[in-house]
Amino acid sequence: MFRKEIKVLDCTIRDGGLINNYQFSEKFVKAVYAAICDSGVDIIEIGKKLVESDEYPRSKYGEWNYCEDDLIKRIVESYQGKFQPKIAVMFDIGRIDINGLKQKTDSPVDMIRTACYVKQIDKALDVVKRCKDKGYETTLNIMAISAAIETEVIEALEGVAKTPEVDYLYLVDSYGAFYSEQITHYINLYKNYMPIEKMGFHGHNNIQLAYANTQQCIIEGMNLLDTTINGMGRGAGNCNTELLLGFLRNPKYDVRPIYKVIQDEFVPLRKTMEWGFNDIYGISGLLNQHPRDGMKWRADKDKAENCHDFYDYCTKAVTGD
Amino acid sequence: MFRKEIKVLDCTIRDGGLINNYQFSEKFVKAVYAAICDSGVDIIEIGKKLVESDEYPRSKYGEWNYCEDDLIKRIVESYQGKFQPKIAVMFDIGRIDINGLKQKTDSPVDMIRTACYVKQIDKALDVVKRCKDKGYETTLNIMAISAAIETEVIEALEGVAKTPEVDYLYLVDSYGAFYSEQITHYINLYKNYMPIEKMGFHGHNNIQLAYANTQQCIIEGMNLLDTTINGMGRGAGNCNTELLLGFLRNPKYDVRPIYKVIQDEFVPLRKTMEWGFNDIYGISGLLNQHPRDGMKWRADKDKAENCHDFYDYCTKAVTGD
Repeated sequence: MFRKEIKVLDCTIRDGGLINNYQFSEKFVKAVYAAICDSGVDIIEIGKKLVESDEYPRSKYGEWNYCEDDLIKRIVESYQGKFQPKIAVMFDIGRIDINGLKQKTDSPVDMIRTACYVKQIDKALDVVKRCKDKGYETTLNIMAISAAIETEVIEALEGVAKTPEVDYLYLVDSYGAFYSEQITHYINLYKNYMPIEKMGFHGHNNIQLAYANTQQCIIEGMNLLDTTINGMGRGAGNCNTELLLGFLRNPKYDVRPIYKVIQDEFVPLRKTMEWGFNDIYGISGLLNQHPRDGMKWRADKDKAENCHDFYDYCTKAVTGD
Repeated sequence: MFRKEIKVLDCTIRDGGLINNYQFSEKFVKAVYAAICDSGVDIIEIGKKLVESDEYPRSKYGEWNYCEDDLIKRIVESYQGKFQPKIAVMFDIGRIDINGLKQKTDSPVDMIRTACYVKQIDKALDVVKRCKDKGYETTLNIMAISAAIETEVIEALEGVAKTPEVDYLYLVDSYGAFYSEQITHYINLYKNYMPIEKMGFHGHNNIQLAYANTQQCIIEGMNLLDTTINGMGRGAGNCNTELLLGFLRNPKYDVRPIYKVIQDEFVPLRKTMEWGFNDIYGISGLLNQHPRDGMKWRADKDKAENCHDFYDYCTKAVTGD
């Protein structure tokens, strides 16, 4: 598949940080950044930019949860590759300091991605506008769409349509529950409010469909796709950067630096962190459930592999009305 | 997805046997058979039916490589479930004793699947005819299509079109290299020679697309789909039975017995056998290569995880003309 407009956004550090509370070493993030530079990937999301709080104390969360400017500058200055990716960070509604956000001209950040649930749309659109006012490229990532009521999704999209400050609207499959025809269904719905050229996709791999669904988005005409190196991300993880680069026939991309950083940095990391498809996350995806129960189940070594028991646990919990 | 005509063929023992030379215990196969019965899966392929030879000595290969009638009878008689699946075995061209094959009326086997490469099509069609003469349901599984020259595929399909003894023609993605649009391309090609209602699909999971491609076949109208429990099969394995049953909304299927046998039998087995997606098989799939090099690479514990080195190895080997 070749289409010159397609852009890849690698969110390894941001989605991977959901597994380890953003406790990556600076050495690791620098290695990821260098690989992204050399591979030609267009954008790197380097973490969340939240404020410290009782919910997110520095005692528990690493620095990629706060992404202060000095930190980002150290990363960007650590490597000069053939390409220089844009830098993105993620905002969570209610956990940020929008007044403290610098003007784009004084910041190493290029793009701010605002994540929200359907019910938070008004607050999220306000945040997007203010990010745009300060000069940033913006995305709006409405999460957990597979579990949202469609009339409420439509109301949210009506709000998006009235907000030209949204540069990209993301279709987000937080539960990793969609298959290709559902992707097409939601894209067609979103298209009523936003042109496909201004849409992005973020998938999860619970039922091994993150890569396939990303391809389906490309087939439907979408040009901004999220990936993570080695698929590292919460629960079953995401669409693998290396698979998508291997699929895209654009000579600007080189998959080798990605395989190199996997071999050097991710293989050792896999001994201490778990991500990727397994039976438990497969059940979460099939049942269209938030991965939190699956993650809790996997954390208990005595029952981590007991997929039949987990299926029973999940389905018994939802019987009755 | 609900369509009452869809049938699932579980080939766990046959494709899984490619990993361990068919050395499954009878207890294990009986457990798989019982789970298949209880799940409502339509057909179980229980092994290959080859003759002993210097290439396939009994000293090296287990009994599921030969599938003698007494063995199959012991399995079938070991469990009476709600459903009784049809029994299939696989024939490899040049490694079988067609004259020694009993009439269907005297055999526990219902379906014989003949696997061949494009160049073996004439021999394969002869075998299919003779299986049909003896009363068996037949399939023809033309392997490694992603690496075959299309004019030769077309010649093979012309032969198939003239052979009404072929009950089902399989599209086989041996290298796990196809994505959805390629699946559609080949289905459209095959349709010129065989109606879609008489086609089946067998995928491999090298780039995490076995399940997605199986769904694409269903979307295109295909009704016979191969799966394996837990995705167990050569290299990156196959479309997971449990994922496909979870996707199909036919109440005749029950996914619970599949998760039960995974928990009880496959989880322990995973400690001694390896299958499923990993970086190495991902590279094989992206490069449209036979998984044999990847399997050899994985078997060497010193370099099994060195995906960058494997990428170099594979791509250096194919430079030049």
